[in-house]
Amino acid sequence: MVGQKLAQNLAATGRIGANDVTRLELFDVVPAPVPANAVIPVNVREGDLSSQSVAGELLSDRPAVIFHLAAIVSGEAEADFEKGYRINLDGTRYLFEAICQMPDYWPRVVFTSSIAVFGAPFPDAIGDDFHTTPLTSYGTQKAIGELLLSDFSRRGFMDGVGIRLPTICVRPGKPNKAASGFFSNIIREPLAGLEAVLPVSEDVRHWHASPRAAVGFLLHAATIDSSTIGPRRNLTMPGISVTVGEQIAALEKIAGADTVSLIRREPDEAIIKMVAGWPQNFDATRAARLGFQAETSFEEIIRVHIEDEAVTTGNN
Amino acid sequence: MVGQKLAQNLAATGRIGANDVTRLELFDVVPAPVPANAVIPVNVREGDLSSQSVAGELLSDRPAVIFHLAAIVSGEAEADFEKGYRINLDGTRYLFEAICQMPDYWPRVVFTSSIAVFGAPFPDAIGDDFHTTPLTSYGTQKAIGELLLSDFSRRGFMDGVGIRLPTICVRPGKPNKAASGFFSNIIREPLAGLEAVLPVSEDVRHWHASPRAAVGFLLHAATIDSSTIGPRRNLTMPGISVTVGEQIAALEKIAGADTVSLIRREPDEAIIKMVAGWPQNFDATRAARLGFQAETSFEEIIRVHIEDEAVTTGNN
Repeated sequence: MVGQKLAQNLAATGRIGANDVTRLELFDVVPAPVPANAVIPVNVREGDLSSQSVAGELLSDRPAVIFHLAAIVSGEAEADFEKGYRINLDGTRYLFEAICQMPDYWPRVVFTSSIAVFGAPFPDAIGDDFHTTPLTSYGTQKAIGELLLSDFSRRGFMDGVGIRLPTICVRPGKPNKAASGFFSNIIREPLAGLEAVLPVSEDVRHWHASPRAAVGFLLHAATIDSSTIGPRRNLTMPGISVTVGEQIAALEKIAGADTVSLIRREPDEAIIKMVAGWPQNFDATRAARLGFQAETSFEEIIRVHIEDEAVTTGNN
Repeated sequence: MVGQKLAQNLAATGRIGANDVTRLELFDVVPAPVPANAVIPVNVREGDLSSQSVAGELLSDRPAVIFHLAAIVSGEAEADFEKGYRINLDGTRYLFEAICQMPDYWPRVVFTSSIAVFGAPFPDAIGDDFHTTPLTSYGTQKAIGELLLSDFSRRGFMDGVGIRLPTICVRPGKPNKAASGFFSNIIREPLAGLEAVLPVSEDVRHWHASPRAAVGFLLHAATIDSSTIGPRRNLTMPGISVTVGEQIAALEKIAGADTVSLIRREPDEAIIKMVAGWPQNFDATRAARLGFQAETSFEEIIRVHIEDEAVTTGNN
């Protein structure tokens, strides 16, 4: 989803920071949708990065910037142990190794990591020097990707920047079965006049940024002077820490009590247990100093959703 | 070296904690020396763990405890990028995967990590929740091994304990070319009446434990109730933080001024630069609470060396 939004942005603007983009290659295991209104050539390719030879072929045109978002998501990496390691770890490593093997090539590599690299217990706010002790295989694979990114960059093989994305909210589209889906569902569905299920209590606190902010992080990571980052190439992105209750209050302020009444409480012990191990709050000082910007309130996150997804509500 | 001392201990005692050891298998890329005075059968095998099928064969007898110490050392992993990843990362992963593929098998796996998983800048004392941002490929490979160990343990495939060893001092044997060798050389060589070169200034602070303490860590890691550790399976081992000046003062107290006069100052800019990025001090609270024990003074470290290596000095 974030990858598609990024592709739309690049294709429609033909710019990345101050630079022109000459061509956009989209690579995924299934053909990516071609962005509408593209002002630059867009080429869609499909394949499996976990086949060792694929990355080398993919890089034959020597792209200056590589966004590596591909991943088996958290639930699937937990359900299929072997597949998660093959795609998330081997795929990432093959990509980095293919770059390393190309002479006179030093691309910027933007790697999307995740706050899933952290595992409970946590301090009140997770600082930039807190250890990565993931409690999922997905988080483990991302943490390993971070280590590889730093080492391959330190050795001069590539110019990597890793960004740990907050939970993206409000996710557009239909409700999905991801355990974190409810954070978006309880905003998006009521705004569309539909019922949404809240499986946890309102005091659950979590860390969010909008899809628009995520695209901004990716573009900034692609263009920032990496010498300002130093050897610690992986950065926790800024976000907003709010409770579910605060999310709902923000929704009510924007869309009214009738909208909020569409949220149905239906506790789900499995989700409650999972969410208890998730990060709640960060102190993302380094990223903020390096110019990464997120929303500053959950209301802003909802307004971004309404704008970017052209949502029509009774109140706006 | 630590592996050999561990093998000697196990072979000579036939015990690991409260349990009898029925058999000892030593596996390395070159045949390990057979420990003297073995009271149990010892089998020496050679092979390359970075060949994917080797680990499975190695485990055919279903050992209850596996000590995984094998590694390309720091300098070599830095000099030969590909080899370091192949042996230190792939070798470790193949071992863990081979365990994972065996039904009804849940061995204790003791993985020797290293304080090289940490990279400067550091707080005054590196706590148990400080992030691992290594500045060497060796440290990166060890940090990845830690993540795999935790995840494979969390998933119930094995019962792993990772221990981050301090710099081992006093290393027996001859001076070697490891950048950290001088920490031992300046003690061992003068005690033997030989000159030693000190390539850094006396205010350099570092983190040490004796070979005896390291064997103790390994044995404790093999026998500890892992349910007391929790999901964060990797532990910084206790040690002593001393400056080189304090090391020399301890040596003088034990062996006299003549011995200390055998230390020749010969600054080496390359070593000075490397050492500047090394950890100096830790707060290893978790390991201490879990019963891991190291020396409590550098004098004790020297006395352990004199005892265990049967060193004869003028003063003792």
